[in-house]
Amino acid sequence: MKAIKMPESIGLVDCQRWDLQDPLASLREQFVLPRDVIYLDGNSLGAMPKAAAARVQQVTEHEWAQGLIGSWNHAHWFDLPNRVGDKIAQLIGASPAQVLATDSTSINLFKVLSVALCAAAKASQTRRVVLSERSNFPTDLYIAQSLCQQHGMTLELCEANEIAPRLQQGDVAVLMLTHVDYRSGGMHDMAAFNQLAASVGALTVWDLAHSAGAVPIQLEADAADFAVGCGYKYFNGGPGAPAFIWVNPKHAETWAQPLSGWWGHARPFAFKADYQAALGVQRYACGTQPIISLAALECGVDSLLAASKLTPDASHPMRALREKSLALSTLFMRLIEQRCADFGLVVVTPKDPAKRGSHVSLQHSQTVPSAFACSSAYAIVQALIARGVVGDFRAGDASAPAGSSAHADLLRFGFAPAYLSFADLWHAVEHLRQVLQSAAWQEPQFQQTQAVT
Amino acid sequence: MKAIKMPESIGLVDCQRWDLQDPLASLREQFVLPRDVIYLDGNSLGAMPKAAAARVQQVTEHEWAQGLIGSWNHAHWFDLPNRVGDKIAQLIGASPAQVLATDSTSINLFKVLSVALCAAAKASQTRRVVLSERSNFPTDLYIAQSLCQQHGMTLELCEANEIAPRLQQGDVAVLMLTHVDYRSGGMHDMAAFNQLAASVGALTVWDLAHSAGAVPIQLEADAADFAVGCGYKYFNGGPGAPAFIWVNPKHAETWAQPLSGWWGHARPFAFKADYQAALGVQRYACGTQPIISLAALECGVDSLLAASKLTPDASHPMRALREKSLALSTLFMRLIEQRCADFGLVVVTPKDPAKRGSHVSLQHSQTVPSAFACSSAYAIVQALIARGVVGDFRAGDASAPAGSSAHADLLRFGFAPAYLSFADLWHAVEHLRQVLQSAAWQEPQFQQTQAVT
Repeated sequence: MKAIKMPESIGLVDCQRWDLQDPLASLREQFVLPRDVIYLDGNSLGAMPKAAAARVQQVTEHEWAQGLIGSWNHAHWFDLPNRVGDKIAQLIGASPAQVLATDSTSINLFKVLSVALCAAAKASQTRRVVLSERSNFPTDLYIAQSLCQQHGMTLELCEANEIAPRLQQGDVAVLMLTHVDYRSGGMHDMAAFNQLAASVGALTVWDLAHSAGAVPIQLEADAADFAVGCGYKYFNGGPGAPAFIWVNPKHAETWAQPLSGWWGHARPFAFKADYQAALGVQRYACGTQPIISLAALECGVDSLLAASKLTPDASHPMRALREKSLALSTLFMRLIEQRCADFGLVVVTPKDPAKRGSHVSLQHSQTVPSAFACSSAYAIVQALIARGVVGDFRAGDASAPAGSSAHADLLRFGFAPAYLSFADLWHAVEHLRQVLQSAAWQEPQFQQTQAVT
Repeated sequence: MKAIKMPESIGLVDCQRWDLQDPLASLREQFVLPRDVIYLDGNSLGAMPKAAAARVQQVTEHEWAQGLIGSWNHAHWFDLPNRVGDKIAQLIGASPAQVLATDSTSINLFKVLSVALCAAAKASQTRRVVLSERSNFPTDLYIAQSLCQQHGMTLELCEANEIAPRLQQGDVAVLMLTHVDYRSGGMHDMAAFNQLAASVGALTVWDLAHSAGAVPIQLEADAADFAVGCGYKYFNGGPGAPAFIWVNPKHAETWAQPLSGWWGHARPFAFKADYQAALGVQRYACGTQPIISLAALECGVDSLLAASKLTPDASHPMRALREKSLALSTLFMRLIEQRCADFGLVVVTPKDPAKRGSHVSLQHSQTVPSAFACSSAYAIVQALIARGVVGDFRAGDASAPAGSSAHADLLRFGFAPAYLSFADLWHAVEHLRQVLQSAAWQEPQFQQTQAVT
């Protein structure tokens, strides 16, 4: 997929040709996708692998209903967080037995940030700041607020370009970043921030929610300290799928994390009254895990590992998916430029491939008639959904500083390379062009705000 | 079911007659149960309701695969923790909007115990003890250890009969108990302990893992402070089903719990950088929940609510199930006495119906030949499982004081009233008698220790 050269003016036939040349095209057959939908929201909830439906049925009708309690052993339910974790490890540059698939991203962040704060406090009494970005996903900030309060630390938020100078000031204990920004799609240079943080004595905690399964991550090689991530976005693990957690082996046994449930005990079935943390990442387990959802997640992770089987000589199991993802997002940005130039759309996502993940966000700068209760970005997304082009809308935080990364309302389009075609994007942009040209988004039915995802 | 009078000598025909008279007998049709299995471990993993398999298939193949991201709204996934929580509330004596189905029991315990310790510390600087039982389920003790360390409190463990005098000493901040003991099956008088605790200024935290779905609980009427419980035991929610959490309304908004994820935010979709705890129990939500597992749990809870539809005039939705449960456990104890008296079995569970839950535990006091690597209790359970009678084994903690509640190895048999018949128990005890009389349990294959559940 490396060699796509896009002509000045891109046509549908070009997209169709690239689809024919796509070495990953057959992956789409793994998924169930609704007819007449172009799904550009796999960055929020991945599509269902066909295997997931079958596997979930097997877990319920065979393992649960027939195997009953014995399935904890015979169907290997106990090992599921570890087995799925080992598969995820391959996709994020970690080694076997370093990752658990468990709990939610928020809860896993609580675990690793707790340990990071304990480790930082022990290393230095003068580093009392947790540094993060204003546009970080709010749940990460909420968890950090809670832990900062508990540990007597301060959470400081800045813009992306302010991180490096802020780190240099020497009082940052932990740098907590989301690798790919859920709003802008901008991606940090993980290796560079890990190196810079280490050089000033700070630890790094990464949230991989919008990068795991979308870009090749090298947690060990890039010397990250802690990482958590999401199972239901690019991993296609199903709604609310369990999340994952990784701890650099050098930290794995230095502290016990506070959610000290029995699955993290050194000998959970000895039923001892005293907690003794297990070795390695196992101590980051807590309570009993939702096996049905976890089994679906395994199928989702398998759906990405299938890509590496099609391209066995790649340097990273995510390499081929990344190349296609970048080709898709480049195509999308080019088509927006080429076909929607007159309608006030502004691409927020970095054009530099090294600086973005797998989604592209747009602002719509057209003045909104004052009668509208919602922003034009919201209405355009709704008009597209009505046509079967499913992206999503992310509201800006009006209380954030104007011009800051968190301020603007955004249209967001995610490009899951495992099941999207180049022709899909051509059609999606054509729908967007028609919605804008006809001003269809100004129809009242697209402006009714409801609960959004 | 109230009127069962058991004759001196009980025969299979008596059991069959009681089955014919059982007003709840039709509930069994709701479940899939394997042929040739008598399942006496529903206290560890409940059987599968037929509806759960169908519902899970609907969630995957329709809501996820076809509805995709839109199902968060259209399929009401966001409300699922609340909707399932409202159903659970009916079974535990709580009001609507007081219960969430979410996370694991360990994590929910962490939330409520954190808040209880904050509240206790604010009320008094002299109460610094969390009191619990030596035989409490270990994960509860581990979580309490972690939080006591964080809050500078002390976790003290005692035997059940020592709780009341220990409370009187005036330094207990929180009384943390499991309502029905996972080992002995003994049940605490919740109302009495709540009253006693309140009278000495202590708060109560209840783990309902082995009582919810088995006995009628009156959290509000009995003035409990906090409660958590399990979805996969008597609630039949599936392996590792999400747990639940209840907070007395008088505490619900006094503190924010520390796992401050976005689902507990007052306005999660405003994407504000600052955490603002939601009102009521909603603030005890944290991250995104595993929807497939949660949907299965709803079917499990429905399977119990079905009992209250068969007996609409009962004083509590659990009343009829409780009456049958007690009839089953009484029958089991009587049959053990009648048919297995010569084989060294000792019933550990209280004979007084008011003092037990829905499982019965036995010790086997026969001397074990020294060549055995496991206890006789373990081997007997294995021999029964080989015959299709599924109970379980709970290892004692050899390091606990001899004679303490946590010390002995136990055979444990659970009586889920929604799907067990009286004849099932007759056959189960007959198998037990044969295993003991033939000394079949001494065969080597039943003594190989493996991972146990």
